[in-house]
Amino acid sequence: MDIEQPSHFRPSKGDFRWEAVAHQPYKQDGSAPFKDISRQVLFHEDSLGCELRYFEMDAGGYSTLERHEHSHAVMILRGQGDCLLGDEVYPVKQFDLVTIPSWTWHQFRATAGEPLGFLCMVNVVRDRPQLPTEEEFTRLMATPAIARFLERS
Amino acid sequence: MDIEQPSHFRPSKGDFRWEAVAHQPYKQDGSAPFKDISRQVLFHEDSLGCELRYFEMDAGGYSTLERHEHSHAVMILRGQGDCLLGDEVYPVKQFDLVTIPSWTWHQFRATAGEPLGFLCMVNVVRDRPQLPTEEEFTRLMATPAIARFLERS
Repeated sequence: MDIEQPSHFRPSKGDFRWEAVAHQPYKQDGSAPFKDISRQVLFHEDSLGCELRYFEMDAGGYSTLERHEHSHAVMILRGQGDCLLGDEVYPVKQFDLVTIPSWTWHQFRATAGEPLGFLCMVNVVRDRPQLPTEEEFTRLMATPAIARFLERS
Repeated sequence: MDIEQPSHFRPSKGDFRWEAVAHQPYKQDGSAPFKDISRQVLFHEDSLGCELRYFEMDAGGYSTLERHEHSHAVMILRGQGDCLLGDEVYPVKQFDLVTIPSWTWHQFRATAGEPLGFLCMVNVVRDRPQLPTEEEFTRLMATPAIARFLERS
């Protein structure tokens, strides 16, 4: 699969890439619910019970709008942008911390004309994300701040 | 205890401090096995099963030389320095990744005349660290590279 066997010391190569860490750019087509985002699994160890991943969007890119039972712990590592969390939109910048609770809609957007990258800590065992139904999307769009967020690029 | 109730969005205040995150400087006396180090628990959620902590040493400071059954996943977040891991000493810099396996002696040292800070991901449930016995310390010191590391400040 997509998980590298880690050595104990994996230096940064600069530009938010690492030795022995696979860089997985996501391709999008017209129907994809994300845009210009890549994923790198920095740590995956069953003995720890958790993974640490690094996601990065190009300027104008965004992560999938989704929710799930498992929670996420996020630290912005690069750049700035915006984050939808439940009914709130937060401007985010390097080193800000975002906790994504169970069943909370969330999306990150690189709205500042620069890449936006974040660390995401999750449990190794987790449920699959849900995408919004048409009805749920309509409900989200009824909040003006969320509609403005979802229409940005 | 030392764990803040997290809000969902906790911005960075700059200088590696965060809103609503307690900064815990460790005091040392003559017998302390660490020097000039502080700890901030960024995430602690039982639903995640993991914690993410940020440790920072002042220039010349160091973390405890220890080992334990649980493993650590570390990302250097600030500055540079050196890291002892088992029988190896690695120079470390911002964003380098270090995996600390079970029962492996480890210590971080801010040897570069600047602060050294790192993220450390651990399981919420973990055993207490062991310090080296006099005999184990003597064995470590028998390796010249480790002796040079342990005598630096």
